[in-house]
Amino acid sequence: MAAPVDFLTYVDDHQDQFIQRLATAVEIPSVSGEPARRPDVVRMAKYLEEQLQAYGVETKQVDLGTHVMDGQTLPLPPAILGRIGNDKAKKTVLIYGHFDVQPAELSDGWSWPPFTLTRDEKTGRLYGRGSSDDKGPVLGWVNVLEAHHQLQKPLPVNLRFCFEGMEESGSEGLDDLILEEVKKGKESWFDGVDCVCISDNYWLNTRTPALTYGLRGISYYKVNIAGPARDLHSGVFGRMVHEPMTDLITLLSKLVDPQGNILVPGVDEMVPAADEEEKKLYTALDYSIEDVELSAGGKIALSDDKASVLMGRMRSPSLSLHGIEGAFYGAGAKTVIPAKVAGKFSIRLVPPQTPENVDPLVISYLETEFKKLGSKNTFSIENLHGGKPWVEDHKHWSYEAARRATEAIYKQTPDYTREGGSIPVTLTFAEALGVNVLLLPMGRGDDGAHSTNEKLDISNYIEGTKLLGTYLYEVAAGTKA
Amino acid sequence: MAAPVDFLTYVDDHQDQFIQRLATAVEIPSVSGEPARRPDVVRMAKYLEEQLQAYGVETKQVDLGTHVMDGQTLPLPPAILGRIGNDKAKKTVLIYGHFDVQPAELSDGWSWPPFTLTRDEKTGRLYGRGSSDDKGPVLGWVNVLEAHHQLQKPLPVNLRFCFEGMEESGSEGLDDLILEEVKKGKESWFDGVDCVCISDNYWLNTRTPALTYGLRGISYYKVNIAGPARDLHSGVFGRMVHEPMTDLITLLSKLVDPQGNILVPGVDEMVPAADEEEKKLYTALDYSIEDVELSAGGKIALSDDKASVLMGRMRSPSLSLHGIEGAFYGAGAKTVIPAKVAGKFSIRLVPPQTPENVDPLVISYLETEFKKLGSKNTFSIENLHGGKPWVEDHKHWSYEAARRATEAIYKQTPDYTREGGSIPVTLTFAEALGVNVLLLPMGRGDDGAHSTNEKLDISNYIEGTKLLGTYLYEVAAGTKA
Repeated sequence: MAAPVDFLTYVDDHQDQFIQRLATAVEIPSVSGEPARRPDVVRMAKYLEEQLQAYGVETKQVDLGTHVMDGQTLPLPPAILGRIGNDKAKKTVLIYGHFDVQPAELSDGWSWPPFTLTRDEKTGRLYGRGSSDDKGPVLGWVNVLEAHHQLQKPLPVNLRFCFEGMEESGSEGLDDLILEEVKKGKESWFDGVDCVCISDNYWLNTRTPALTYGLRGISYYKVNIAGPARDLHSGVFGRMVHEPMTDLITLLSKLVDPQGNILVPGVDEMVPAADEEEKKLYTALDYSIEDVELSAGGKIALSDDKASVLMGRMRSPSLSLHGIEGAFYGAGAKTVIPAKVAGKFSIRLVPPQTPENVDPLVISYLETEFKKLGSKNTFSIENLHGGKPWVEDHKHWSYEAARRATEAIYKQTPDYTREGGSIPVTLTFAEALGVNVLLLPMGRGDDGAHSTNEKLDISNYIEGTKLLGTYLYEVAAGTKA
Repeated sequence: MAAPVDFLTYVDDHQDQFIQRLATAVEIPSVSGEPARRPDVVRMAKYLEEQLQAYGVETKQVDLGTHVMDGQTLPLPPAILGRIGNDKAKKTVLIYGHFDVQPAELSDGWSWPPFTLTRDEKTGRLYGRGSSDDKGPVLGWVNVLEAHHQLQKPLPVNLRFCFEGMEESGSEGLDDLILEEVKKGKESWFDGVDCVCISDNYWLNTRTPALTYGLRGISYYKVNIAGPARDLHSGVFGRMVHEPMTDLITLLSKLVDPQGNILVPGVDEMVPAADEEEKKLYTALDYSIEDVELSAGGKIALSDDKASVLMGRMRSPSLSLHGIEGAFYGAGAKTVIPAKVAGKFSIRLVPPQTPENVDPLVISYLETEFKKLGSKNTFSIENLHGGKPWVEDHKHWSYEAARRATEAIYKQTPDYTREGGSIPVTLTFAEALGVNVLLLPMGRGDDGAHSTNEKLDISNYIEGTKLLGTYLYEVAAGTKA
């Protein structure tokens, strides 16, 4: 069932108002990672809640308690739950989004003040922190609500909302909220949810809409090597003692090679190779080596073969060496032998990998390799955090509805993508609710979500609003078919 | 010629005054590395100059110009030249020392305020920044001058002084001063100098006085690997692109092994192995594996063989990996792929190694190894600074004089040591003046020169003052012999 014409027309006719709505939201610097801006996150929660209420959504602010950041105990910003519609003949869709943003300062290299929405008529872009991640998509849903409210049209599905203000700072408190809410059964705000839709990622490129059905997991490690009681002078102690940095660098060099192959035995091997049919899925995606090099800002792709590069991100594990804690990191030439160093690295996981089956391989490998060094320093390894990968059934009716909606709005078949990163709440919803989760991105691959000059194309915001609304109609149609 | 008894008695009788002199000096926080304390370095220069003048030394403050530190242009503290005695029948000894100190804050972990000299009667120690490095030794010379002045005894040699206030910050301006002064010929304050004596290092241990005849040189390198235009998200880009950290860690792992062997072909091989006779020199030193592990604060010696461990520091090159600039170095778990990283390492050099013959080996080896990686990232290597090693003829009459003086005061034959670190001015004096340079340490191996709770044992300060004076008499005796 295509979306009704009056809805689509309403969206077109109210572009300027919708952009003004986004401008108001961007002006609230709801940076969850900076304690001083915590009141702005709360203010943003209130703004969003008022918008939802204005269009008939019943809401509830949920207090998530406190947490510690930079040594300060801070109240967490509230999460907002919402519901509208309770028609048992309709499907119920749960919408997730977040209203906090990454830090941004003009001095980081922004061309415009980050907390003012700057409209560039020439490129048709809206610049500002949060424009794409995730205020644009969240307000896209509000736009859909407004259109139906003003047109006095009933929504084609029942909607539930779960919006948080800590996504950019580890979604603290959210998992607990979801798990406790689910436990309430009939009393739960999530009762009767048939599927979840999250609009918080991006197209693969700048041209083709995408549906995303997979995310990599992660396991993050810290390898500690310690020896002397204090940092030593390399002139005085060099070649008298085992140096922790030498041990650590030797170990880190045994984890991954410059072609990206993971050297920990058994890790790459856990993932079955793609057959020709699966490779075709990646060949079919609208993406090129030029796209990856453009977005990385360097001609550094691991291969000239598009499918191989895309599989590297979407269906292969990866191991990245992030840095070293405790060693000299400044400019200049300090001649220190650091006493205690910690190497940080992480592995992105794909099914069937989980932290539970990968961690023992990594830990025992490094323990064995450390013993081979014959060093008198001490070794230990910690797992700092982990998360399972997620892959969804992309032939589910929710994905079919999203495909039809995309074809209706963009006249294009969407790319079916898997993302290399993690959105942990996806897995929480999938496991806690036991329903299909769809990632339906609004923005483009070059939006610069965590970067300077974050933007959302006006066309993505407006057509994206239509897409979200149309998706709801297609969900309803799928149900009736 | 032993020192006259009245000199030795004067020193014993004036211990408290000498300690008070050191206390006054320690109270001036002449930290050359902190721009805000630069006026204190100038105040310390003035205090020292007045002390010298009080005991008959003609002095001159030399303006060394300006330099840039932390982005500020600062006047360098003056160097102080001094001279006393012009008897052509006597040897002329040039004394070098420095009156600036390392930074120190109580909050670094000092047990007492670092800029107050704290006398611990139980241990017989004087705690305070600069007590051992290098205010104690410098004032040891002043004590010798005072004794002769008060006793109205002529000094056994002519003395020249060169004291600087920038030693802890790279001795800026000093090389130029020495080279220009030497050029002046007959007008030079260094005219007629027969030998140089520097008291600015330490005994090997806490028991045995030492004469030091060698220092290692250094060559410091920075290896740059760059790829993307900005830091990348490891979820999004992991296994799509060549990661600079992977390349850098792989390269750094090819430089040195956990046993301290340098893996750059040709570097270790430049230094002839020690024969049995040379090994005996090291076996003879009053030193143990326990000493090295005590001073390092960990049981991490590379070998159980004392001679081998001592040769590692004194007559072998060493390669230390200091750290990485540009990578994640904080606490926590950041999932970044750093765009541009720089590995810092240095090689301590021993004869016949020099930066000139070692640098090409290192550079061409790393260039070759980088090509082997098959990475599309970019590679470059810089040499940040270098200095030649120095080894002196330890059978020279100046060393013989110092040996006899040590035997007279301490009733012990000194250890003949080579230091693992560098004191660049040593080589400048040796090359510019073409005379023998002697390092005659006053303090012990556990003084903690650049550490918290720096100290000088009272006995080292008092007996050390006698040693410095006696050395001058033995130089005079050696001349006449």
